[in-house]
Amino acid sequence: MKIKIAFLGLGNMGAPMARNLLRAGHDVTVWNRTLSNAEALRTDNAKVADSVATATRDADFVITMMADDHAVRSVVLDAGGVLENLAPVTIHISMSTISVALSQQLAAEHAHHGQLYVAAPVFGRPEAAAAAKLFIAAAGEASALERCQPIFDAVGQRTFVIGSAPEMANVVKLSGNFLIFSIIESLGEAVALTRKYGIDTHAYIDFLTSTLFSSPVHKTYGAIIADERYHPAGFRMRLGLKDVRLVLAAAEAVDVPMSSASLLRDTVLSAIGRGMEDLDWSSIARYVAENAGLPKKE
Amino acid sequence: MKIKIAFLGLGNMGAPMARNLLRAGHDVTVWNRTLSNAEALRTDNAKVADSVATATRDADFVITMMADDHAVRSVVLDAGGVLENLAPVTIHISMSTISVALSQQLAAEHAHHGQLYVAAPVFGRPEAAAAAKLFIAAAGEASALERCQPIFDAVGQRTFVIGSAPEMANVVKLSGNFLIFSIIESLGEAVALTRKYGIDTHAYIDFLTSTLFSSPVHKTYGAIIADERYHPAGFRMRLGLKDVRLVLAAAEAVDVPMSSASLLRDTVLSAIGRGMEDLDWSSIARYVAENAGLPKKE
Amino acid sequence: MKIKIAFLGLGNMGAPMARNLLRAGHDVTVWNRTLSNAEALRTDNAKVADSVATATRDADFVITMMADDHAVRSVVLDAGGVLENLAPVTIHISMSTISVALSQQLAAEHAHHGQLYVAAPVFGRPEAAAAAKLFIAAAGEASALERCQPIFDAVGQRTFVIGSAPEMANVVKLSGNFLIFSIIESLGEAVALTRKYGIDTHAYIDFLTSTLFSSPVHKTYGAIIADERYHPAGFRMRLGLKDVRLVLAAAEAVDVPMSSASLLRDTVLSAIGRGMEDLDWSSIARYVAENAGLPKKE
Amino acid sequence: MKIKIAFLGLGNMGAPMARNLLRAGHDVTVWNRTLSNAEALRTDNAKVADSVATATRDADFVITMMADDHAVRSVVLDAGGVLENLAPVTIHISMSTISVALSQQLAAEHAHHGQLYVAAPVFGRPEAAAAAKLFIAAAGEASALERCQPIFDAVGQRTFVIGSAPEMANVVKLSGNFLIFSIIESLGEAVALTRKYGIDTHAYIDFLTSTLFSSPVHKTYGAIIADERYHPAGFRMRLGLKDVRLVLAAAEAVDVPMSSASLLRDTVLSAIGRGMEDLDWSSIARYVAENAGLPKKE
Repeated sequence: MKIKIAFLGLGNMGAPMARNLLRAGHDVTVWNRTLSNAEALRTDNAKVADSVATATRDADFVITMMADDHAVRSVVLDAGGVLENLAPVTIHISMSTISVALSQQLAAEHAHHGQLYVAAPVFGRPEAAAAAKLFIAAAGEASALERCQPIFDAVGQRTFVIGSAPEMANVVKLSGNFLIFSIIESLGEAVALTRKYGIDTHAYIDFLTSTLFSSPVHKTYGAIIADERYHPAGFRMRLGLKDVRLVLAAAEAVDVPMSSASLLRDTVLSAIGRGMEDLDWSSIARYVAENAGLPKKE
Repeated sequence: MKIKIAFLGLGNMGAPMARNLLRAGHDVTVWNRTLSNAEALRTDNAKVADSVATATRDADFVITMMADDHAVRSVVLDAGGVLENLAPVTIHISMSTISVALSQQLAAEHAHHGQLYVAAPVFGRPEAAAAAKLFIAAAGEASALERCQPIFDAVGQRTFVIGSAPEMANVVKLSGNFLIFSIIESLGEAVALTRKYGIDTHAYIDFLTSTLFSSPVHKTYGAIIADERYHPAGFRMRLGLKDVRLVLAAAEAVDVPMSSASLLRDTVLSAIGRGMEDLDWSSIARYVAENAGLPKKE
Repeated sequence: MKIKIAFLGLGNMGAPMARNLLRAGHDVTVWNRTLSNAEALRTDNAKVADSVATATRDADFVITMMADDHAVRSVVLDAGGVLENLAPVTIHISMSTISVALSQQLAAEHAHHGQLYVAAPVFGRPEAAAAAKLFIAAAGEASALERCQPIFDAVGQRTFVIGSAPEMANVVKLSGNFLIFSIIESLGEAVALTRKYGIDTHAYIDFLTSTLFSSPVHKTYGAIIADERYHPAGFRMRLGLKDVRLVLAAAEAVDVPMSSASLLRDTVLSAIGRGMEDLDWSSIARYVAENAGLPKKE
Repeated sequence: MKIKIAFLGLGNMGAPMARNLLRAGHDVTVWNRTLSNAEALRTDNAKVADSVATATRDADFVITMMADDHAVRSVVLDAGGVLENLAPVTIHISMSTISVALSQQLAAEHAHHGQLYVAAPVFGRPEAAAAAKLFIAAAGEASALERCQPIFDAVGQRTFVIGSAPEMANVVKLSGNFLIFSIIESLGEAVALTRKYGIDTHAYIDFLTSTLFSSPVHKTYGAIIADERYHPAGFRMRLGLKDVRLVLAAAEAVDVPMSSASLLRDTVLSAIGRGMEDLDWSSIARYVAENAGLPKKE
């Protein structure tokens, strides 16, 4: 079945996702604030819209995949945005990593306008997006989610239905980033400790990831930390800070203390204060090492 | 080749390890403070010694596998202990989870007596010990480690050589327990958060362990936390506290700040203060949940 | 000189402050959302306005003294509020404990409307307000501050000029509450420790406050903690949480990590999770004591 | 009444204390590991002993005032030390800042030898010691404390009896240093915050210490932080670390979590890792400022 999709936001995640939807045979109209990113998809048979309104008007589904709350808010809620132009019973699939509060607001606004809203943030890096190997955490009304399944199938390897309230998916996404970041922090501490005792870091990481700590997160970040490969950043420190703030905000809204998240926030702020703003978020391991008096790898 | 081994300490880890050495055809003399644990191994063809001295005197290798520093110190360093009775050039393999400081002291004492000392703590629970599936982190002189390999092969699935200074293996062991405990803490926080948003914990853990968090640690403890299966304890809270203290002591000795370990220490102490002393160490997740105002599962 | 003042917000701080302005002979028009609080000041010769607009229109100074950002925002920025009705060159003195961000916004809005804006939050409890013994941290243009001095003199014992940007005064106010709260936390920990060693808490606090820890904060909260006099609350836990959040928000806005503030935030959230929401903020000392396994005073 | 006192340990605290005892007319025999420190007191009419044993043998009271556990242990417990040479019913007054565990051990050993033991650590800096203005926290049997009073009167301005178990006084001393250090940490955070908002630090500290934060601790350390006067150190970072460790050890021994103390420990270790080992302990404020991206004063 050919679905008419408006895809808004063509960054390093959005562009490969849109391509996979085109490859799956769907009718995809793309829009991006910086037009060139949209034009680049013409060779993949995308239609290019010059405004959110145009892109949205005839679509069966609108997908938003932007950098942050600010971008999503502006594209969806501002005059000429998705909310004004989305046909009734049509679905807005929010796949960005946004705050729980914004997701709740979007759910309310769409309901008020008789539109449907699904949150479906993704796990995976640009390579996984290109390979259609993303994991999708989806939440919303069951019937709406069912309608979205062909879309999820085209961009991801597996979809997990989290619940019927859309913001649940955002909570899961944010908690996931928190869990990754916590692993980075504790790995950083363990590596600083073992380095001080003269243990080779590559051997140490090999031991960990060959035994009880074999998750993709441990493997990916263990290797980066052992190599001290923090630049260019896969995921910049500021984005790490943003996500820690969002998870803490989500937690505060329901009175949940998260000590590890607080510790991460302070660590990230300190790393930024020490000049690591443009490095990968995993460079908090370097921050920890420097606090232990350990030198950088030359 | 048949090796003469004295195996000291037959708790829930030591007993199955000794059995695996017997099964591999070695000549094993066992000793345990509570004699009945030793007698139980007669049916596996173990010889039973009535003193550490007797067990140690003729052995090519002495293995210690006790609960803590205190037990190891008493068995090795006290009058009538291993140090006094070990023949020159014979190897003491310390497989217990002990402090870095004690391991350094043992290395010095054995060297002083012309004996060899290897630290080879293990990763794995009693089931893994029974199945000879332990992971072994070994450190010591290369030639001594080589001589120990048949022993390691009989009790574990893989041996990782960490370095030439024995205490390096203890650092790795302690850091590993710290990493496990950190994962428990952050999982506990993430579960408290998601519960507050109405997300089913089993579904949540399934999502995590099916995607980026697929390590044995996440699977084992994710399941326990979802089930709130904290009693009977697989590893008691007090033991968790002991290991956090040991990792912090090892870190302080070389001026390494470990914020996550400090946070864990305070969390464990608080959980003990709240009456969770006899539960599994993973019940810090319950402690966190209660701080979020969440009820126990009934 | 008789000054025409509109005083908005007559809670347990605002009412005695307005009374002191009346006592000083000023012409004070009062307004409060709950009218009865305003009517109560008629006997002190206050004029009572039935709307913010009426109160504001003829005043030389408008003082706002409300509970939180929400109340201030609504009274100042909403239709019919202060911003719309304040005459040019007239001064809005914001004495409430509000966020730095709101103070910055108010400064910008008033400047845009050709009005003057001064932030002058106060330190002291209702008794100090009644006795005109408040400490005032004031910030804004020097000439505007000078014009406000008679007002400050009528309600406080001393005014400290913090700087020319109004939000500076709010930063100082929030940082002050943070410093108080930090002292409460560390006192709570020290008291838990000394109780466990059998030391009498009243004797301990007497020692501290008679020697190096003689500040009003130590005396006030040391006595409350020793007596476990947490109810009725002088300053409720939720308000403590609000202020910790505001200080953390102010810090995040300029990339300052504040580990002690983070720790406080988590402690307060946990205390709330444990049922202490309606107690005085100093009951985090009880939270800490319970984590140490110590019983409440009966 | 002339009392025969052996005074062991003549550092920058011990020497002025011994001088005050001489001034009060007592018969004081001094001993110090580095003999020159002892010889310097001859002009004050001190007798100089060439060994601990000689100094101790005829004394009615032995006072120890050394740098740390190691020094006290060696002077008291080693062969030829205080324990061996102290006459029955004679009192050892331990005025050093030592661990709770060592104080408990000393109490047990002295009791075993029929000797009396009192712990009486002091609060105050060398200037206060010279002026006989120290505060003394004393604990031990009431009758023993009574006998010590003339000694306390000669060196301090006021003595606080903490309880009958000597270690109680050590707990109080350590907790006091913890409370000072906590104030330094939170002041450091508050100063970093206010600096980022352009607030002058001297004005800020003046505001604090003139209002609610008027304790000697706030005044002393507020001034040092405002001036960034961290060198030469009044109390070196390593000593701060030592005391934090001792307070944490005392807390762990009785299962008391102290989150602020843990945070301090990590902060101090990090400051040392960043090269601040030889600065005053209050330079953790500089560490915090650097984490906020703030430059040193030039």
